[in-house]
Amino acid sequence: MVLSRAQAAELDRRDDLAGLRARFVLPDGLLYLDGNSLGALPVGVAERVAHVVEHEWGRRLIRSWNEAEWFTAHRRVAAALAPLLGAGADEVAVADSTSVNLFKLLVAAVRLRPGRPVLVVERGAFPTDVYLARSVAELTGGELRLIDSPAELPAALDERVAVVGLSEVDFRTGARWDAAATTAAIHAVGALALWDLSHSTGALDVDLTGWDADLAVGCGYKYLNGGPGAPAYCFVAARHADAVLTPLPGWHGHAEPFAMSPDYVPAPGVGRLAAGTPPVLSLLALEQALEVLAGVPRAALEAKAHRLTSLFVELVDAHCPELAVVSPREPAARGSQVSLRHELAYPLIRALAQRQVIGDFRTPDIARFGFPPAYTRFVDVWDAVRLIRATLDADEHRDPRLAVRETVT
Amino acid sequence: MVLSRAQAAELDRRDDLAGLRARFVLPDGLLYLDGNSLGALPVGVAERVAHVVEHEWGRRLIRSWNEAEWFTAHRRVAAALAPLLGAGADEVAVADSTSVNLFKLLVAAVRLRPGRPVLVVERGAFPTDVYLARSVAELTGGELRLIDSPAELPAALDERVAVVGLSEVDFRTGARWDAAATTAAIHAVGALALWDLSHSTGALDVDLTGWDADLAVGCGYKYLNGGPGAPAYCFVAARHADAVLTPLPGWHGHAEPFAMSPDYVPAPGVGRLAAGTPPVLSLLALEQALEVLAGVPRAALEAKAHRLTSLFVELVDAHCPELAVVSPREPAARGSQVSLRHELAYPLIRALAQRQVIGDFRTPDIARFGFPPAYTRFVDVWDAVRLIRATLDADEHRDPRLAVRETVT
Repeated sequence: MVLSRAQAAELDRRDDLAGLRARFVLPDGLLYLDGNSLGALPVGVAERVAHVVEHEWGRRLIRSWNEAEWFTAHRRVAAALAPLLGAGADEVAVADSTSVNLFKLLVAAVRLRPGRPVLVVERGAFPTDVYLARSVAELTGGELRLIDSPAELPAALDERVAVVGLSEVDFRTGARWDAAATTAAIHAVGALALWDLSHSTGALDVDLTGWDADLAVGCGYKYLNGGPGAPAYCFVAARHADAVLTPLPGWHGHAEPFAMSPDYVPAPGVGRLAAGTPPVLSLLALEQALEVLAGVPRAALEAKAHRLTSLFVELVDAHCPELAVVSPREPAARGSQVSLRHELAYPLIRALAQRQVIGDFRTPDIARFGFPPAYTRFVDVWDAVRLIRATLDADEHRDPRLAVRETVT
Repeated sequence: MVLSRAQAAELDRRDDLAGLRARFVLPDGLLYLDGNSLGALPVGVAERVAHVVEHEWGRRLIRSWNEAEWFTAHRRVAAALAPLLGAGADEVAVADSTSVNLFKLLVAAVRLRPGRPVLVVERGAFPTDVYLARSVAELTGGELRLIDSPAELPAALDERVAVVGLSEVDFRTGARWDAAATTAAIHAVGALALWDLSHSTGALDVDLTGWDADLAVGCGYKYLNGGPGAPAYCFVAARHADAVLTPLPGWHGHAEPFAMSPDYVPAPGVGRLAAGTPPVLSLLALEQALEVLAGVPRAALEAKAHRLTSLFVELVDAHCPELAVVSPREPAARGSQVSLRHELAYPLIRALAQRQVIGDFRTPDIARFGFPPAYTRFVDVWDAVRLIRATLDADEHRDPRLAVRETVT
């Protein structure tokens, strides 16, 4: 190894964020490098959810909408999220899934830019993002323009573009856009910038205000640790908040929900993006989970992400040359994940799981490893590479039984 | 009283469904008549949710998508719901909120009936239903036609109508459509019938197949007892399932989710209506809750609903003449709720809560009481009317402090 395990342990001792790890329930002996898919369980969430189910739902029943403040929970969660997004609390709404929020904001964006029919997204974006953009183009009589790489964006930008929807971090490769410069380029043609931050928030120095972003969405269950299928969020810059029109108006987003009027009057600002009743158990799990990251500087999370991923790249380069690093080598140009290419990536990931190293597979040949800065140690990186090497040496990834596909998310 | 408490207790002793009550956690001394807003907590749900959080999420982490079958949970819940809807398991999808599902199906309905621009809904429907229908009309270049009463439906039906969206049971009055006859009338002009069953399923003999319904939606947290904001469902009749096009295509509804293709190929049948990652904690709470109603005949639930609501109406008529029954007096013409009109309905509901009788208020003057047949006893009805009478006699509903509005859902 290019550095010893003792040296890695020394990095952990000097890590200002090391104390956060104790705020998570992490199984002994597991090297969990898939928090970019499902974040670990924070301490306190199980107790909070149990209280919500047994006391608030079970004993207080309907009264908890007021007493336990379920009705305003989505606003509290939005306020807790805002600092992690570089946004104001009044610019963030928490509701529905990332998909539904993306749909709402794509339609809203097209309406904010009448006479501009074009939506631009990446062909290689998370598939739902492409499907939704195509659907919105069809519904609004617009046009979908797909780009195959960041280099194609400048040529795709013109005065016919209403909105450009980009994932700050690519889910397959970990490649990261320069969000500030890209937003500026999008604005230069008068279009709106919509960022999908699912693979960013909680791990990187997301700064929607600094980027001058217009719109954003993201999920609650990756680096935010809100639990499987946690509610998602959306961001609308204050300058647009009172102009945004959602295609999914609902009573939770009405100016006077309990007037129960057949006439829709949107709530002021971003609150109008709420529609139906939120999944309260999942929403309050997310609220509890966000306490772990309260007050943690975004820049500190990103700095640690750089160091963790750099160490992993360095060790893989040195010890596992048969695995090609496909993530960018410049730390600031990638998310908190590193993707490796190998023709046997699928059985390799399964063989590693048998050794208690959890990464994940993305078709056709990507082994993906995530390094959530809140709970990943430098020794975890060191141990993971040692076990990857041992797995390759033992040809465990060539076991034909592991090549038979099962569902993997 | 027109019958004694002992006679009410005798009705409970003869009630075939009486045993179901033991499957719920109900606080001692509380008369909970608001299960039509938030259903009670079934026994076993707290344990199931705790296991999901602590073991499946906390210890097994991402592996639970396969191991604990999170990925297919929405299909299991759909299969458990189907018998309560009179539907086939392959006609039901569980996803998102009722609002989002209604949006999907309204857009799908307009697409199934090209050349027919009109959507018909009731002006007095649950407000979100009206807002969404208006939004879909705007997005599809269509036209919204509002009716003010069931009597206006025939005149609203013509060959320009694509879809009629109706709530089987009115959330304010409890009035119920004749769903089979109404569906036939809608079909007679070639339009599609979309039923909102939020106030029906789990309490009434919903029979989508028998009605020949086309589409339906409903929530999981009222008579299905899935917990606050439980995931919702939608129904698409088998004859339409492969023709339905959702405006919210997502990877969970793709024919090959893990191909991660930029080209959307809808899953066969109703499964295409899934989009994003479901809120797993809330979804599995609903799955556990549905075990209580497994194998319970829908007709038995409805028969008990008739008897409970009839007893309440009879006792209110006899003992509380100042409260006007606004729900229909024919049992089959109402849901499992009874709404009473009084100018002080709001402080009355709050005064009753102080006596541990929980109903709810709907603006401007409706006191609403729900009688979930799965756990409401005949003695509960008797005791509630006695306490309503005592509250009125003591003029507690005239306490000006109780007239000050707070948020009530």
